[in-house]
Parts: sequence; structure tokens; C-alpha cells
Amino acid sequence: MSGDLEGRVLVLGDSVPTNFLNDLRTAGLEVRNPPGSFPPAILDEGEFRDQLQGCRACLLGGDEIATASVLQAAAPELRVVSFLGVGYESFVDAEAAAKLGIKVTNTPGVLSDSVAEFTVGLVLDAWRRISEFVTLGHAAAQVKRHDLRGHRVGIVGLGAIGTRIVEILTRGFEAEVAYFSRTRRPGIEEELGIAFRPLDRLVREVDCLIVMVPETAATVGMIDRETFAGREPDSRLIRVNTSRADVVEPDGLSWAIDTGRVESAWFDGFYRVPSAITEALEKRPEVEVSPHVASLTYEARDAMAERAVGSLLNLLRGGEDEYVVN
Amino acid sequence: MSGDLEGRVLVLGDSVPTNFLNDLRTAGLEVRNPPGSFPPAILDEGEFRDQLQGCRACLLGGDEIATASVLQAAAPELRVVSFLGVGYESFVDAEAAAKLGIKVTNTPGVLSDSVAEFTVGLVLDAWRRISEFVTLGHAAAQVKRHDLRGHRVGIVGLGAIGTRIVEILTRGFEAEVAYFSRTRRPGIEEELGIAFRPLDRLVREVDCLIVMVPETAATVGMIDRETFAGREPDSRLIRVNTSRADVVEPDGLSWAIDTGRVESAWFDGFYRVPSAITEALEKRPEVEVSPHVASLTYEARDAMAERAVGSLLNLLRGGEDEYVVN
Repeated sequence: MSGDLEGRVLVLGDSVPTNFLNDLRTAGLEVRNPPGSFPPAILDEGEFRDQLQGCRACLLGGDEIATASVLQAAAPELRVVSFLGVGYESFVDAEAAAKLGIKVTNTPGVLSDSVAEFTVGLVLDAWRRISEFVTLGHAAAQVKRHDLRGHRVGIVGLGAIGTRIVEILTRGFEAEVAYFSRTRRPGIEEELGIAFRPLDRLVREVDCLIVMVPETAATVGMIDRETFAGREPDSRLIRVNTSRADVVEPDGLSWAIDTGRVESAWFDGFYRVPSAITEALEKRPEVEVSPHVASLTYEARDAMAERAVGSLLNLLRGGEDEYVVN
Repeated sequence: MSGDLEGRVLVLGDSVPTNFLNDLRTAGLEVRNPPGSFPPAILDEGEFRDQLQGCRACLLGGDEIATASVLQAAAPELRVVSFLGVGYESFVDAEAAAKLGIKVTNTPGVLSDSVAEFTVGLVLDAWRRISEFVTLGHAAAQVKRHDLRGHRVGIVGLGAIGTRIVEILTRGFEAEVAYFSRTRRPGIEEELGIAFRPLDRLVREVDCLIVMVPETAATVGMIDRETFAGREPDSRLIRVNTSRADVVEPDGLSWAIDTGRVESAWFDGFYRVPSAITEALEKRPEVEVSPHVASLTYEARDAMAERAVGSLLNLLRGGEDEYVVN
């Protein structure tokens, strides 16, 4: 089938290794990278629209957002947007794409180990203050912490990544885990010995809260002051999340830290739209933020790129693809 | 039996909570803390000798060293030295104590969760550069790392702590683990699916090396330039240890980092006797050191104190104690 396709593919972001781009070229496609610096700057809406002109497909691996307006301008040539990652909802208006006949794909499953392992690493870092100790050495305060074994960890979201996190925490660390999810998962409850809790009760009862849900209209701000208010003052929850920061409402989190309901909050990725509140929150000593790197492993990125390129080629060839989301 | 004992107990270090000291007082003993600052300064040999005069027992929870000379001066009043921790070999001359009729005890087992969890946290920190990411935020280089699942982790030492580390790594993370130990442990090999390797081969073959042996005359410097030499240059081993730094010969480690055989080394506790070589090594960007805090949890410290006090009381009452090491 090689050399059977023609047309241009816009590749955004720097996460697609050269060998996978060569798969596109072998198939007959022209690869277009936006001009500019390395690492590539993030295109704004107008630049994205310009670059996408005349392209048949887009590998969306950067932080650009394919709005309805961007997609509209690229139709009808544009057939496929292959998103590298799981939470496409924040980056592609999949509904607008569907109306224009543009297929959107994502790459679920392949990130689970990478993100779950990083998340557990953040939990241990927050739980035992490892980064403080290795940064300060002798100057670090010798503050006693707690074992993780036997302590109560709550997780919000039990998708592929959340489930992998729970496997590590229960099988490896023998922590007591409870979860909240839109959909109850009795099979996983039984297999891993975890209990379902309504969100407010979960947040009230645990020592450590992991948030692992995609950012959607329904999840932005879903954990807010009211959710934290059920906790006792000075009960000192440790919160970690490696899904989008915006799932936790920043004003409510600040209040919870001020009142001792939350001891510290560690997350992977800054708030999407900075404000005075989010910037002040991110600068607090109780808050640590890593720059959205939980999936930054060779294994995850290669698997994402391979799958996204595979979906793109399947669809341009007129076939079906199991990773279409719209 | 309360109030049945008399005499003084010297308590060193700040890791024995008040309630356990009260157990000593209830038994009729006088508790002596060395005078001075909080946290307590470390007594030198002369100060230790002075403080120990007239004491029947010592709870050794600081960094003081009970040398033959210190013990000699305290005999025959001194009957028991209860060491808080496992690796007493670095802190008590147990052989000299035995000759003087002084029993030495330690507290094995109770530290396993605390130290094992911290060690796995250090592995993840080294493996994914978590502390670098949370410290530098946006400014951190976006360098791809690797998943832990499926990668090869070697561990030197398979005591209670080492075994717990391997449980977490195999059951939780599904890493491929091999080990070296003086004594082969076929039961654990089978239960956890791990392979025994001679030390040189282990160091040659793995991606991450965890060192977890007590510091003894036999283990100081046991991993040296020759051990690392079997690795390919630029093979970039990640080494983590939370037993004593001195198990790895510092000059050999520097050479291994210079030649790319070791990518980075993370350990919990500085080299015992600083030298120009160890200080330069500890300042390298490839080396991170936390200040010997792997066992710093309430659970571990309380259990250690409870056990050490229990052994001390058993022995002063003339009973047997299962934690006598000499």
C-alpha cells in the first residue's frame, strides 16, 4: 500500500519521532512542520488556520487548539485530526469536526504506565517530601511523615490511567484505596479490593487524594470549596493530580490550604488560563507544579505517535479506525 | 512489674517520643538526656563517655558511636545498649560490648515499610526527575525518560527492607528485578519471580541499581570502579541507595559517572567521613543526597522506640530478649 496516498499532513508539537514521520512520507504524503523555533512555538488560532490550509490531515501533538473556526476554514480538504494523547476534549472541537465530516482520533491506553508511574512518584514526593530533602540536603527540616501502607488514598476517576495507579498503590504499596467515578466499576472494585464513595465523602475521608479525570465542561472546577468544606480544619489532605489542574477550582483550593483542610497540592501542569488567583496559588510553598510531563517517556510517546500515525493512514485510505472519537 | 527497676538510662537522639520515655520512668528508671540544644548536638567520644557514667542502659537513637573505649568506661554498671534501627554495626562495637557483658539490641523489621517506600520514591525521582520538574517548573528541560514497567532493576541486599522494595517493584510496578545477596533466597526468588545474579553481572545488566545492605567492614566500598567497569560506557545506570553511602566507593562512582556508566546516583545519607572526593561527588549535578530520612515516619519511629524500650526493660529485668545481636 506504500505510496498510495497524496496530500499534506500538518504535524504540530515535537513529540512525533522521525521514523513515524517517515511512515507518512513512504505512504506518499507530504509532511508540513510549521516554520520557526525548536522547540516549536505554540500557534495561535490565526496561525493554526493558515498552516492547516490545504492539508488533508493533522497530527495534533502540541498545545494548539483546533477550534470550530480553525476546522471550518480547513474543510473540506481536511479529513482527519489525530490527537496524540487521551484528553482530546481540551484540544479539538470534536463535535464541530463531526459536522464538517472530519474524523478525530486519540490514543487511549498507551499512556497508562507512564502517567500512572509519574503520579505515584508525585504522591511519594508529596507524602515524604523527597524533592525538598534532595534539594535542601542537610538544611531540610527533619519532619516526620507517615508510611503509605495502610493509609487511605482516594482517587477521582477510574479510567485506564486511574486503574493502573490503583493497581500500583494496592498491589505494591498495600494502601487502602477508595474511588469516585461517574460510572461504578464493580469488576475493578472486586479485583483490587477498593470501595466506591460519593465525591464529597471520598474527599472527606482520605489522607491523600489523586485526581485523574479528563478536562471537560463537566469536570472543570468539579472539586471546589464545597467539596473541601466537609473535611475537618487541620486535617491536612495531600492532593496530587496529573490530569489538568483546572479540575480543581483554584479559589476553593486556596481556601482549603488556608484552613488546613489541605496540607499540600502537587499537580502536573499549570492552570490553563493564568489569573491572579492561579498564579498566587501556584507560587504558594504548599503547591508544587511539574510542567505537564507525566507522559514524557520514550515508551509512551513512541506508542502514541505510532498509533496516531496508524489511525491517520487508516482513515485517509478510507478504512475504519477504532480510535475515532466523533 | 512497674516501679521494680532502678538506675539511669541515657537517651540519645530525638527520636524517642515522650510516651515511651514515660514507660521507663514508670518502671522506676531515671531518664537522662544530654544537656544542650534541640535538636540535640551529636556527642563526641569524650562527651558520650561522660554522659554514660553511672548509667545502666542506653537508648541509642542519635548519631553517636559507642566505641570499645566508651563501653569500657561505662562497664560494669552498663548492662544494655538498645540501638534504634537495624544497622547497629556502624554505631556500636557489639563485639567489645559482648566481652564486657553488655547486651546490644536493635529493631529489625519495623523500618521496612518506611524505608522501602522512601527508596521507591527516590527511584521514581531519579527515574523521572520529579524533583527537578517540581523545582524548576516551566524552566525544566523536557527530556524524555522511560517507563519503569518492564525495565530491569537490580537490588543488592535482600533483607527485610530489600524484600519489601522488591515486592513493591514487582507486584506494583511490574519491573523486572534481579538481586545479589550473600545468601541466596530461593523462597523469595520463586514468590516474587526474581533472579539471583553475581554482583558484577547484576551491575552490568540492569538499568537501575538499588543498594540496600547494612554498612559493615565487609560492605564498605563493596561496589567500586571494578564493579562499574563491566558496564558499557554511556550505558547510563541509575543508582539509588538508602543504606549507607559508604557501601559505594566514591572514587569509583565518580569515574563511572565521568564515563557515562552511571547516569546519576541518589542516596539517602551523606558519606560518613567527608573528604575532598566525597564532597566533590555529593556536589555533582548527577548526584542527589537526602539527609538520611528514609525511616523518618511516625509509624517507623514509634515502632522502633517501642521495641527498643521493650528490649531494654526485658534485659534489665534479667529476662531474655529476641533482639539481642551480640
